[in-house]
Amino acid sequence: MAYHALNEKTLPDYLRGRPAVAARFDRGADLSVKEVGDGNLNLVFIVANRDEPDQAVIAKQALNYLRVAGESWPLTRERMRFESLAMQTYNRLCPGLVPEIYDYDEEMSLMVMEYLGSHEIMRKALVERWRFPKFVDHISTFLVSSLFYTSDFSLPGVQKKEMQARFINPHLNKLQEDFVYTNPYISSPENKWNPLMDSEVEAIRADAGVKAEIAQMKAAYMTHAEALIHADLHTGSIMLNETDTRVIDPEFCFFGPMAYDVGAVLQNLVLNCLSHFGHTPDRAQREEYQDYVLGLVRGVWNEFARKLDEVWKAHPEGDLMPARYWESAGGTDAFATFRRATILRLLQETAGHGGVKFLRRMMGIVNVWDIESITDIRKRAVAEKAAIRIGVRWLMDRSRVTSVDDLIRVVKEEIAGIQT
Amino acid sequence: MAYHALNEKTLPDYLRGRPAVAARFDRGADLSVKEVGDGNLNLVFIVANRDEPDQAVIAKQALNYLRVAGESWPLTRERMRFESLAMQTYNRLCPGLVPEIYDYDEEMSLMVMEYLGSHEIMRKALVERWRFPKFVDHISTFLVSSLFYTSDFSLPGVQKKEMQARFINPHLNKLQEDFVYTNPYISSPENKWNPLMDSEVEAIRADAGVKAEIAQMKAAYMTHAEALIHADLHTGSIMLNETDTRVIDPEFCFFGPMAYDVGAVLQNLVLNCLSHFGHTPDRAQREEYQDYVLGLVRGVWNEFARKLDEVWKAHPEGDLMPARYWESAGGTDAFATFRRATILRLLQETAGHGGVKFLRRMMGIVNVWDIESITDIRKRAVAEKAAIRIGVRWLMDRSRVTSVDDLIRVVKEEIAGIQT
Repeated sequence: MAYHALNEKTLPDYLRGRPAVAARFDRGADLSVKEVGDGNLNLVFIVANRDEPDQAVIAKQALNYLRVAGESWPLTRERMRFESLAMQTYNRLCPGLVPEIYDYDEEMSLMVMEYLGSHEIMRKALVERWRFPKFVDHISTFLVSSLFYTSDFSLPGVQKKEMQARFINPHLNKLQEDFVYTNPYISSPENKWNPLMDSEVEAIRADAGVKAEIAQMKAAYMTHAEALIHADLHTGSIMLNETDTRVIDPEFCFFGPMAYDVGAVLQNLVLNCLSHFGHTPDRAQREEYQDYVLGLVRGVWNEFARKLDEVWKAHPEGDLMPARYWESAGGTDAFATFRRATILRLLQETAGHGGVKFLRRMMGIVNVWDIESITDIRKRAVAEKAAIRIGVRWLMDRSRVTSVDDLIRVVKEEIAGIQT
Repeated sequence: MAYHALNEKTLPDYLRGRPAVAARFDRGADLSVKEVGDGNLNLVFIVANRDEPDQAVIAKQALNYLRVAGESWPLTRERMRFESLAMQTYNRLCPGLVPEIYDYDEEMSLMVMEYLGSHEIMRKALVERWRFPKFVDHISTFLVSSLFYTSDFSLPGVQKKEMQARFINPHLNKLQEDFVYTNPYISSPENKWNPLMDSEVEAIRADAGVKAEIAQMKAAYMTHAEALIHADLHTGSIMLNETDTRVIDPEFCFFGPMAYDVGAVLQNLVLNCLSHFGHTPDRAQREEYQDYVLGLVRGVWNEFARKLDEVWKAHPEGDLMPARYWESAGGTDAFATFRRATILRLLQETAGHGGVKFLRRMMGIVNVWDIESITDIRKRAVAEKAAIRIGVRWLMDRSRVTSVDDLIRVVKEEIAGIQT
């Protein structure tokens, strides 16, 4: 079927013609369809059997343009192929931490997958101060399994590069390169920011030192092909509840720097923490929840580091380095030292990429709902000023970071600055 | 024609059937063929018209195995496709600095190119203390043109990644990863070294600190896809005379760290400098030529840095970063600072990759003719011990290097240590 964008009316007939999807519903089921896409790139539909609402799927179709910018920003649809490819890989490496995929139609750029009716988008749940006792464990496992098993730590060199070749994704790369590392820091028509932040935005744009470091992080993003990264792993790409966590929307995936994914998680948690200056007026309640969220930041990094070290130690099967390389030089100690140095480098790069991502969220095309939903722009500016200061400090001081507590201390200092 | 290895007898008939090659010779020419391959991977033939010796070409055919290791080390022939692809690219970006390519037969893994009858392999010419007044200018132009114009400094992101996809070369990568960064430092049957160097070789294999830094450089080699690199740019891959310089043998090409190519040139020049402890017994003559060669090291780096800065400043057309990125932050000054920082990083990485390559040449599968050809193994060990010390210092101290003179000072100190 030649590509055409589907809608709530045309989708049911299309799905009835896809055997893998039809099998999910009773024969002759009366399908309800609701478009729920709040993302920037795609149509997203919930399709359910009106008589048996447990029979439901998600259908996701790529558009020819960047939705957030309007039809004037054309975009290739190949991203749905990359999303499908990443989802296959994640289902293999991190089973249970992504939705199940039922069908993929390359020509229609349309994927059908598990409906997560009992899950919430993490961003919204955090604004409502929910708690997720399994999140740290689940997301750190997702990060370690998806990154380690696609990296040179785990794979033979030839196999890794053959995999990398399948994930060359230049058009989506270009979006992140522009919208994370370039356009927010220059005058560009799609940029949006709180008018009370004019002078802060101007100051970043004029800061040669900050911009040089952003450029270094962009160089790393463009060239450091360490592992298959999700490349958009913010809290809007995580759906969860108290017992289950799923990562969605990996269309930006490619072989890039591991720290970009880790940085996205930590930085979005910190932004949420700051957003409670708007969302949670009661000080005791706010501080208690902010501490909880910062505990998630600490937990995610520390569990990521612990699990990565553990799995790497147990499976030194990649070409960087084979176990026998270390044998003549102290063996386990030398290998442990190398793992430790590598994980420290990842933390410092996490601070760098995470730091830049604070800035882009405050002054680029894609702001962040946690903050944007603060209707009082003065309260919003309080959170935003702190976010910019934290971003600059994570970025500029990254080479001196030695533990995640260094990053959390910066957040706490900026929070304390607000409250005095 | 199904693949089969050709020889001096079968090559003429094959070439007569290739129109682009046949056109290079008089009709009915009596062709002489001589196999001259001294490399590790391929057959190389000089084919000439017996009656008109100026009518001559080089035919190069890939074998199914690693020649230096024997038929037991199988190797894909796709490397000839990569060599042909790189040669096309170099002919476009660095015209006159590589041989002209006349024909390429994918099925036979055979390429026919310009015969450089008036050129000498640089390695041999340096042992004979020749001088090349144009070399610094030519090789620095080759490095800048081949690296800059295939990098994010110069190319739009999408175009660079599409080019990168064509140069994914995992099997040849694997050879360098193993033979430069891994196997020399462990017990591996193909390693070769001077028996008088047993304790030095043993010491490197047991040095956890050195091995951790080698592993960091290997990680960079495996993941930092900065530009199309030649990836084997030693003085055996350079043919030249007083007026002309050509780079050959780019079959290892891929998108890797720029500093690897620069490091290969500098490190091979330094090895040649050391080899004169064996080749040039007269002290005054030796010291004078060693100074000349170290002058080439200084010249190659400084001209590389100067030309790279100049072309980048004049053509800031790549996505890292567009010129407008710097405008709001001081403009030319900020951009100049970023270029300077990037070029310093390249120098430090040059020291790192170059440092490792000293070590691999002393204790790995592929030694270096300048040194191996010193028949007195005691004299040879003098040069080799200095090479190991220089390699370790370049590698371990690389983050403190600020100019090429720092690297040359290390060489001079180790030379002085020999002479006292």
